[in-house]
Parts: sequence; structure tokens; C-alpha cells
Amino acid sequence: MPYVNIKITDENVTKEQKQALIAGTTQLLVDVLNKNPATTFVLIDEVNTDNWGIGYDQVTALRKNK
Amino acid sequence: MPYVNIKITDENVTKEQKQALIAGTTQLLVDVLNKNPATTFVLIDEVNTDNWGIGYDQVTALRKNK
Amino acid sequence: MPYVNIKITDENVTKEQKQALIAGTTQLLVDVLNKNPATTFVLIDEVNTDNWGIGYDQVTALRKNK
Amino acid sequence: MPYVNIKITDENVTKEQKQALIAGTTQLLVDVLNKNPATTFVLIDEVNTDNWGIGYDQVTALRKNK
Amino acid sequence: MPYVNIKITDENVTKEQKQALIAGTTQLLVDVLNKNPATTFVLIDEVNTDNWGIGYDQVTALRKNK
Amino acid sequence: MPYVNIKITDENVTKEQKQALIAGTTQLLVDVLNKNPATTFVLIDEVNTDNWGIGYDQVTALRKNK
Repeated sequence: MPYVNIKITDENVTKEQKQALIAGTTQLLVDVLNKNPATTFVLIDEVNTDNWGIGYDQVTALRKNK
Repeated sequence: MPYVNIKITDENVTKEQKQALIAGTTQLLVDVLNKNPATTFVLIDEVNTDNWGIGYDQVTALRKNK
Repeated sequence: MPYVNIKITDENVTKEQKQALIAGTTQLLVDVLNKNPATTFVLIDEVNTDNWGIGYDQVTALRKNK
Repeated sequence: MPYVNIKITDENVTKEQKQALIAGTTQLLVDVLNKNPATTFVLIDEVNTDNWGIGYDQVTALRKNK
Repeated sequence: MPYVNIKITDENVTKEQKQALIAGTTQLLVDVLNKNPATTFVLIDEVNTDNWGIGYDQVTALRKNK
Repeated sequence: MPYVNIKITDENVTKEQKQALIAGTTQLLVDVLNKNPATTFVLIDEVNTDNWGIGYDQVTALRKNK
């Protein structure tokens, strides 16, 4: 009965990409640890780039400087 | 000083239901562990059904198949 | 399919008290939101009092000053 | 490579205040533990005052009673 | 720069299994969202079966009843 | 009433360093957002280096290769 929380920046992730993350993570837990997929939860949090910092800066600023 | 995080799907939860979850969880911690309610935090996260997976699938799909 | 995470200080919580927190939280989600208990997770984290701060101080220090 | 999650109520926090939280937290981890800022993540969650409880009540109600 | 937190029960997970979870999750984020593995974090929490509840009960009890 | 969770690797962090993280984080929230320190929680999780992955690998392996 694993619980997985994936946090990513909120940058136009599609419904299909979310479905791929859910299916892929669940399969990984089945393959590696033989977990039951029926009680495997995968939750995705999309975080605004103003609210995610790395290396002292907001991701918003990092994206502009690229 | 407990901290409780409740994650539920974002499906029309009312303000009154949220208040009931907060009061009930706090009372439980008072009853079972004699915790101080003044420093008991309860945080509720409402998660989009596209972002919550169980059994390989998005909850959005599960709701449609019911 | 709710997920609940309860964080408390690691101060001799018994197995029976943990069971009471799990059963009580699950019942609350059934009562307030009609959730399915079979897919309701409750996870308890016990945190060392050196690792929990409130009001600038470690809980370890607060316990000594009582 | 620390990971820091700051949860605050959603009450008009500005982009500049978020940047100050990110920079200040990162600097603290550099100063205290000599961590590498390039792999230090700071994530800020802004939580609706209906969804944050303390002392049995929603913060929304506490703000009104002030 | 994704952050992934995997919570599983503390039941003799080996170092090699943990490595497989870390590598597999990272590869999934590269494949689905083209994320940079150098700033992809995967954290695994192993939770005591007394501290994990599902369906009103501790996993400890569920394991005994199998 | 902020809640802050700091996750770091479990590598001989002292009680004094933890206290410095707690005091510094609390002060930052007072300075930037004028939060009340009496209801500011700071929780520190120390994570085994086998359980923390970055760039496909366990931190345990990264430390050896330095």
C-alpha cells in the first residue's frame, strides 16, 4: 500500500502526462517491491514557479535567464 | 502540538465539512493523547482528480466508470 | 481514498493509542465525507523532540522548563 | 541537498516575500550545515484559510474574530 | 527539478531495491516530462507497520490475519 | 501559524545545529511575513543516505565517489 507524492513545477503538464506518471510509478512499485496496485496511491502536486526555489532563486527567474 | 495533513479529492467539499474535519481531528488528538488543541494544526489539501492515481488510473477515470 | 498524515512528538505513544488514532480518523472521514474506509490511509510520524521546534525552541527544552 | 517545505496561509503573500523566504532559508542551510545552495530546494504552499485549522477552528473564523 | 516522496512499510526493503526505486522514478520523470535528473530528488520513507493504517486497522494486524 | 518541514540527510547533525535551524527559520518568518513565533512549527526530518536519491543515485554512493 505505497503512497507516492510527486511535486513538479506547474508548467502545462497535460492530463496524459499525469496519467503516464501515475501508471509508471505504480508499475515500478509492483516490479521492485511486489506491491498491490489496487492500494497504491500516486499524488501529483503542481507548484507555481514563484513558489519553488533552487539555488537561492525562484524558478520563475531561472526560466527567464535561460 | 500535533500537525495533521488530510488529503482528499477536490470534489465539492463544503466549508462546513472542512470545519467538521478540523474539529473532529483535533478532538481525537485531545481524547487519545491529551494534546493541547491550541497548538494542534489540521491542514486540508484538496487534490484535483486528474492528479490523484490509484490502481494505475486517475480518479477522474474511475469516477466516469462507476 | 483519503490520505492522512499525523505528526506527533515521539514520547511513548503506545500501539493501542496509534490504533485509536487510525480508527478515529478513518471513522471521521466516513462520517463527514462518506469516504470508503478500505482505501483510507492514516500514517503516523513520531518526531524526536530535538527535531520539533515551536516558538524558536526545541520541544526538548520546553519539556524541561515545564 | 536539503528540501524545505514552507506552509503558510494564502493571504496576499507577494512574489518578493516568497523570494525572501527562499533566499533566507537557503542561506540558513548554508550557514548552519554548509549545504550546497545549487541543490537546495525551497517549496512554498499557500493554504486557503478555510483549509487550515488551529484550536478546533478554521483560520477564516479566527481572522473574523480578531 | 522534481521532488518525489515514496512512503512504504518498513518490511526489509534492501539497499538494492531502494536504488531501483530511485533510478526508476528518476527515469520516469526524464521520459515523461524531460526533467533534468541532476536536480531530481527521490526520498523514501519506511514506515513502521504499527504506524500505517488502512481500513481502520494497523498494517501489523493485517499482516497477521493473512 | 506557519509550518515548516526541513528534510536533510542523516549525517551527524548536532542538537545545536537543529536548534539553529529552528530559531533561524522562525525568525525568517517573523521578519518576512510578521508571523507569530508562538504558533510557528519547524520540523526536521533526517533521512538515511540510502533513502535519498539525486541524479539516479543514492547519496550513499555519491559520498563514496567524492
